[in-house]
Amino acid sequence: MSELKYESQGSWQQAVGGVTLPRGFQASGVHCGIKKSRPDLALIVSEKQAAAAGVFTSNLVKAAPVLVTMEHLKSGCAGAIVANSGNANACTGEIGLRDAGIMADEAACALGINPQEVLVASTGIIGKALPMDEVREGIHIAASRLSPKGSGDAAKAILTTDLTTKEIALTGHISDRNVSIGGISKGSGMIHPNMATMLGFITTDVAITPVMLKKALVEAVDESFNMITVDGDTSTNDMVIVMANGLADNPVIDEEGPEFHRFCCGLRKVMVSLAKMIVKDGEGATKFVEVRVVGADTVEDARRIAKTVASSNLVKTAIFGADPNWGRILAAAGRAGVDFRPDLTDVYIGDVLVASSGKMNGFDEADAGKSNSFDEADARKALAKKDTEITIDLNIGSRTASAWTCDLTYDYIKINASYTS
Amino acid sequence: MSELKYESQGSWQQAVGGVTLPRGFQASGVHCGIKKSRPDLALIVSEKQAAAAGVFTSNLVKAAPVLVTMEHLKSGCAGAIVANSGNANACTGEIGLRDAGIMADEAACALGINPQEVLVASTGIIGKALPMDEVREGIHIAASRLSPKGSGDAAKAILTTDLTTKEIALTGHISDRNVSIGGISKGSGMIHPNMATMLGFITTDVAITPVMLKKALVEAVDESFNMITVDGDTSTNDMVIVMANGLADNPVIDEEGPEFHRFCCGLRKVMVSLAKMIVKDGEGATKFVEVRVVGADTVEDARRIAKTVASSNLVKTAIFGADPNWGRILAAAGRAGVDFRPDLTDVYIGDVLVASSGKMNGFDEADAGKSNSFDEADARKALAKKDTEITIDLNIGSRTASAWTCDLTYDYIKINASYTS
Repeated sequence: MSELKYESQGSWQQAVGGVTLPRGFQASGVHCGIKKSRPDLALIVSEKQAAAAGVFTSNLVKAAPVLVTMEHLKSGCAGAIVANSGNANACTGEIGLRDAGIMADEAACALGINPQEVLVASTGIIGKALPMDEVREGIHIAASRLSPKGSGDAAKAILTTDLTTKEIALTGHISDRNVSIGGISKGSGMIHPNMATMLGFITTDVAITPVMLKKALVEAVDESFNMITVDGDTSTNDMVIVMANGLADNPVIDEEGPEFHRFCCGLRKVMVSLAKMIVKDGEGATKFVEVRVVGADTVEDARRIAKTVASSNLVKTAIFGADPNWGRILAAAGRAGVDFRPDLTDVYIGDVLVASSGKMNGFDEADAGKSNSFDEADARKALAKKDTEITIDLNIGSRTASAWTCDLTYDYIKINASYTS
Repeated sequence: MSELKYESQGSWQQAVGGVTLPRGFQASGVHCGIKKSRPDLALIVSEKQAAAAGVFTSNLVKAAPVLVTMEHLKSGCAGAIVANSGNANACTGEIGLRDAGIMADEAACALGINPQEVLVASTGIIGKALPMDEVREGIHIAASRLSPKGSGDAAKAILTTDLTTKEIALTGHISDRNVSIGGISKGSGMIHPNMATMLGFITTDVAITPVMLKKALVEAVDESFNMITVDGDTSTNDMVIVMANGLADNPVIDEEGPEFHRFCCGLRKVMVSLAKMIVKDGEGATKFVEVRVVGADTVEDARRIAKTVASSNLVKTAIFGADPNWGRILAAAGRAGVDFRPDLTDVYIGDVLVASSGKMNGFDEADAGKSNSFDEADARKALAKKDTEITIDLNIGSRTASAWTCDLTYDYIKINASYTS
């Protein structure tokens, strides 16, 4: 449904090229030696200083690169992102802050820009110092390999336990200029997303002020990355950054209006795509599930319920078992902290109405617990699909929201029972 | 540590007899036909009307028996508890309310008391109507089998996926009278406790007013059952009920003072024991873990952090894998919504200091991510024990709290991927 909305609003077209599709951006990804052999260092660079904005983890324990990047973004502009995987540079105290600063300095030096213009990100193991000799050398090699086709290499170099790279690009029009937006992301332990480090890097050639860019980013995050995580359940290193270098030469967007909303629509579409890719690649995941809440009084209510249901271990294990356990769904909704009417609520699994007015569809006292009255075989079939949907209709208003999740499986346990070893 | 505190404060002695140890209580447990063959209906009866109090699920979706029992407890007194397992009588609308009412009526009729004096509880599958013919007959059989040694039978009859019965009794002195407190409980999906139905039934012969009994219960719940669940993460059917029939003949406790606090201490000890038994029997659990937070500014802060860490999937899978992943522990603490100083925080696994001042114990930049500096073998050994402890010292105050959890294992997935089928 949301997809349709974007299509009709924005006329954005999918394209290839990721973060290097927008004019003036180059990227690279190299192996510097943090990981044994896979790429572990990425650079994304704009040929021109760009407006820039970021959103960051709400965790009290913030990794050093998060603190450095928050500081550097105070100016509202940036020229490059340097990111490493394999080591989160988190819980590393003063040494960590120094190392994150060195990463910015080294990239600035290699690129001939101001260190304040370099944004720094890290993901990986917590609590170990970065091997700075390797990182320093890696930054210079990455700078020498920058390419207008380097998005895929950068996307690879930010992965940890991810199985697939996550990359998207869209083209569209703003003030009759051809514009584009590209993005890459990573995320891993997404099945119960309380510690998934999520990184998202987005580039665009749209001309927009830092204030409006931040506004667009915050709104888009609420409908994308924040809908695959639980409120407050963020890792030490989460960040989403967007850089807008203005090379599309549209009249600068400096207020709300049709052009701003067109841009927001494209940005949202990029970010929802990246967020969904993260869920689909969730640790041990075998299924992708959209939890839609409709008929709510407010969007905020709909979001809270969608997220609570999407993050319930019992719902997620039921999905793994293709068990149409609507009771768990309704009970999870009930603890979302939202005031709704359980006795008006309907629940669908795929297209199958499994609960109606808060009771099992076809609930009948004569049945006395002996069988299901809805078509259980159909509901099981819907849940057995790789891509499925749970819809909760509160029947009290007209607002909707979606959250995305995956099933909780044996492989999640396997992966997470021995990550540091 | 908390155990020691209780020992020294209360002089309560462990005894056998469960809910039928206190004078004037009888109980029974029978098979009525909700489950295939296991016991599924329990009665607990006081020969004299008792002061009574309860705490209930905060879930918006409340099962019919919860609504009926809340209503009946408004008088502050009760004479009996009737409870069934195998069917939660939740999401059953008007029919469910009628059936919960019938359970109270039928028990009242069999016992010769007022229906308003009967408290009703259910646990099991959501959304099916109770087989009322069987339940009615079961109640009369249970009434005919009431016994002053019936606690164990009642404890068995309230189980669902539990593997063990949960029963405790203590004796002590109040105003120089011999008194006792007994309890039984059930709980199953405790590994991530967002849908574990927890039932706790507690009896005592202490004489106390309903107001003071409620006060004692609420305080004890905050240190026991609420420390094995996450705030707001409650099922449709949770309830803890205490009945105090006064047959010990102590001067009625009607205000705060030494006798009230002695009673609170005993009640807390009973409830902490029952809560720990629930965790030890958590679905698929192989290990029992106490998460202690010390050095906090307030008890509330300590509790929030302890509960957040205890309910983190990533911490729980690391415990399953005996992986001393202190980074996950610290990161979970950081998202508890409590303002503390990560750079002052120490983390112990068993007796092993694994993180000091927010960094790995022995963190050294020269090490550059190549090895752990604390004794990893010792920490692994501590985590490999069946019974282990994680301590988080915030080093900013003097308040403490403990939460209890178990590991997240393959068997949790197995049990929950196919519960309704």
